[in-house]
Amino acid sequence: MCSKMEKIEPRILSGFVNFLPREQQAFNNLVTKVRETYETYGFLPLDTPIVDLAEILLAKAGGETEKQIYQMKKGDTNLALRFDLTVPLAKYVAKNYYQLKFPYRAYQIGRVYRGERAQRGRFREFYQADADIIGDNELNIINDAEIIVLIYHVFKAININRFLIKINNRKIYSGLLTVLGLSDKSTDILRTIDKASKIGIEGVKKEFYKLNLLDADINLLVELITLEGDFDQIIKKLQTINNNQNDIFTEGIVELKELTQYLKAFNVDKNNYQIDLSITRGLDYYTGTVFETVLKGREDMGSICGGGRYDNLVSNYSNKKLPGVGMAIGLNRLFYVLNEVNLLDNTKIPSLDILVAPLTNDLSYSIQVANELRDSGIKTQIYFDKKSLRSQINYANQLEIPYIIFIGEDEEKTKTVALKELKTENQVNVSLEEAIKKIKDNNKVEQ
Amino acid sequence: MCSKMEKIEPRILSGFVNFLPREQQAFNNLVTKVRETYETYGFLPLDTPIVDLAEILLAKAGGETEKQIYQMKKGDTNLALRFDLTVPLAKYVAKNYYQLKFPYRAYQIGRVYRGERAQRGRFREFYQADADIIGDNELNIINDAEIIVLIYHVFKAININRFLIKINNRKIYSGLLTVLGLSDKSTDILRTIDKASKIGIEGVKKEFYKLNLLDADINLLVELITLEGDFDQIIKKLQTINNNQNDIFTEGIVELKELTQYLKAFNVDKNNYQIDLSITRGLDYYTGTVFETVLKGREDMGSICGGGRYDNLVSNYSNKKLPGVGMAIGLNRLFYVLNEVNLLDNTKIPSLDILVAPLTNDLSYSIQVANELRDSGIKTQIYFDKKSLRSQINYANQLEIPYIIFIGEDEEKTKTVALKELKTENQVNVSLEEAIKKIKDNNKVEQ
Repeated sequence: MCSKMEKIEPRILSGFVNFLPREQQAFNNLVTKVRETYETYGFLPLDTPIVDLAEILLAKAGGETEKQIYQMKKGDTNLALRFDLTVPLAKYVAKNYYQLKFPYRAYQIGRVYRGERAQRGRFREFYQADADIIGDNELNIINDAEIIVLIYHVFKAININRFLIKINNRKIYSGLLTVLGLSDKSTDILRTIDKASKIGIEGVKKEFYKLNLLDADINLLVELITLEGDFDQIIKKLQTINNNQNDIFTEGIVELKELTQYLKAFNVDKNNYQIDLSITRGLDYYTGTVFETVLKGREDMGSICGGGRYDNLVSNYSNKKLPGVGMAIGLNRLFYVLNEVNLLDNTKIPSLDILVAPLTNDLSYSIQVANELRDSGIKTQIYFDKKSLRSQINYANQLEIPYIIFIGEDEEKTKTVALKELKTENQVNVSLEEAIKKIKDNNKVEQ
Repeated sequence: MCSKMEKIEPRILSGFVNFLPREQQAFNNLVTKVRETYETYGFLPLDTPIVDLAEILLAKAGGETEKQIYQMKKGDTNLALRFDLTVPLAKYVAKNYYQLKFPYRAYQIGRVYRGERAQRGRFREFYQADADIIGDNELNIINDAEIIVLIYHVFKAININRFLIKINNRKIYSGLLTVLGLSDKSTDILRTIDKASKIGIEGVKKEFYKLNLLDADINLLVELITLEGDFDQIIKKLQTINNNQNDIFTEGIVELKELTQYLKAFNVDKNNYQIDLSITRGLDYYTGTVFETVLKGREDMGSICGGGRYDNLVSNYSNKKLPGVGMAIGLNRLFYVLNEVNLLDNTKIPSLDILVAPLTNDLSYSIQVANELRDSGIKTQIYFDKKSLRSQINYANQLEIPYIIFIGEDEEKTKTVALKELKTENQVNVSLEEAIKKIKDNNKVEQ
């Protein structure tokens, strides 16, 4: 009956992921390392709904983002899928303000949805890993530093050294644009600067002309975006431009200086961060520190970890002043790049520790062996199919299982096991205790 | 400006979860134990998309389920949110048939969506934890047994002993209804039986009358549904009814017998499973073994873990014969019940290991201490707010952090730390190495 039914093509939607088991394991290992680092830094787990009221999720979206949001109706209710983890966090904090202790430090690892054009390393359904610190009424700049320190240690934890965290502070532009009388064009100007790495400096200039900026202003902005040099030179340049004309501008400079001092105190390697005034972040909610992270040599993939300070995010839902700072790693993009540059070997661990292959008709002793292996925490599969020895070994090799235990009549009689290491093809007849010890020792070496 | 904006009420959608940090941690610990048990049994991780083509997700839904599905349109594409993890698994196996090795053993832990009426322990967005074994062309009944063994060990792993796995085999009804000439009403009859625990036996009888069943047939079916007694008695009764009239019926009886023999070989406690002919499972795709699990004393919460054998699920997408057997735990419902019966204490572990509280203006030494604690894998937060000693201790107590390290000028000078255990209020001045040792020893005892 079934074979006559019309088949539905099991196709993968563009921008959606279809990992094979080995890739899935490598991805999960990456996630585990990120999560462990977040926890070591004292962040508490949070898991917000993927589906929420459209009015809540759209409150701070706007612009390009809003068009990308997946929306639906259930009954009379307008729903949407979250497009980031920051907006759901803001709602959560507003909702649970009286139950939470501040500073509230939360991490979230979960899926988000953006209906943008799928391309290399850019997905429609993907995982973000966020860490945020929310203060009650105030939040010291050292928290901004610690978020950057956390990024630094996440990359170290996954054995990546060639990365660069580019840091800026929105107050600098906020102040400067006030000085230049361009505050009303602030959103457009910042979004234009944000696109610099995609559209190039000439593209930025064109857009500035379209916004009717003066030549002098354009030149000044372009000078800042392209500014290179060490930290002290950049600060000096900014101080000269500001000349104490604008307090917000001054604040931005002071915050950048303090931030950098704390990064030093935390022993963050100078090669892994720099001031970069072309970083503004597309989203509107940032108010101070902003940063993005690229892999050196793969800057073409764009930022794989960004974030910053948002002093007013919760204000959509609450009258409380709850300033926050946070970051988000695009885990699928990170995984994609690491795969491309072959940096994922470090996450390869065996899928299973052992395959128990019964060669007898009565499975009782094989089951008993498997029970004891599993009780010892060893990842064990019993091969139940009646297949040849060759097929069983093939299966173990294909799944990259390092050991097989064969149970024949001799082993059954002597209550031993025949333990075969697949890499060396060595086979020994040992007691189950010895086998367990051997497999556990092997696991320790591998990890 | 912001305070004048109209606020959006940060309300929680009915049927959606809003865990506070402590609950979230307890929930995550539950998930971790389930995952570790699945991995110990040799299941490979799988993570299918939540969003997929409506035609794929609806292929096997039908009836009540179809009405509950969240659907949406993006461009011209009809999309839906998955309502279980089995249908996405079937699609995945059909899609990746040539890359997978069979038997393919996969576990998935992820969210699913059902727009049913939210009530106690019943959610619209909730986590399922599935484990499945898919064979290529054939799959021995011992695999059905191993899935039930896995359920047994999951409950043991979370320290639950008072649970009951109720087992049946659909072939028994399949054969019986053929003998009775009721095959064409099979779907309705099985769905009616499935509702027995909700609508009661009288309710079942009423529905049977509506289906125009004969009194004799109704009596026989009701007798089976309410059959109690030990395994041998039930099997004997079934053999008498069948009297070798129908091969499928016979197969069902043989499979139940084999299954039970394997459960014995795996040392599954007899108190934790029984044959129950009222179990049929609502979904159409089951073809053989079916089972549900209730917590003894909380049967009113319904099944928190069910599953069974499906021989044709992949047939919607592929001509291959890929029989499978699997199970799904409703994690949010399980968590809800465990909470109600106070069985979650065992999952309480500290959120953080230590709070570093700087009492000096210069934070360098505090940062250095935190760096070393974190390098040792200790979950550490530095308290950056300039607050009183009392506030810092309060904060640690509220977050249930077991230790505080105070860094004053003396500690800075002597390169020591003042380590306070909050439970005992003991405070000692020790080297950082000693502090690390003490915290780690404490963690070992707690776990």
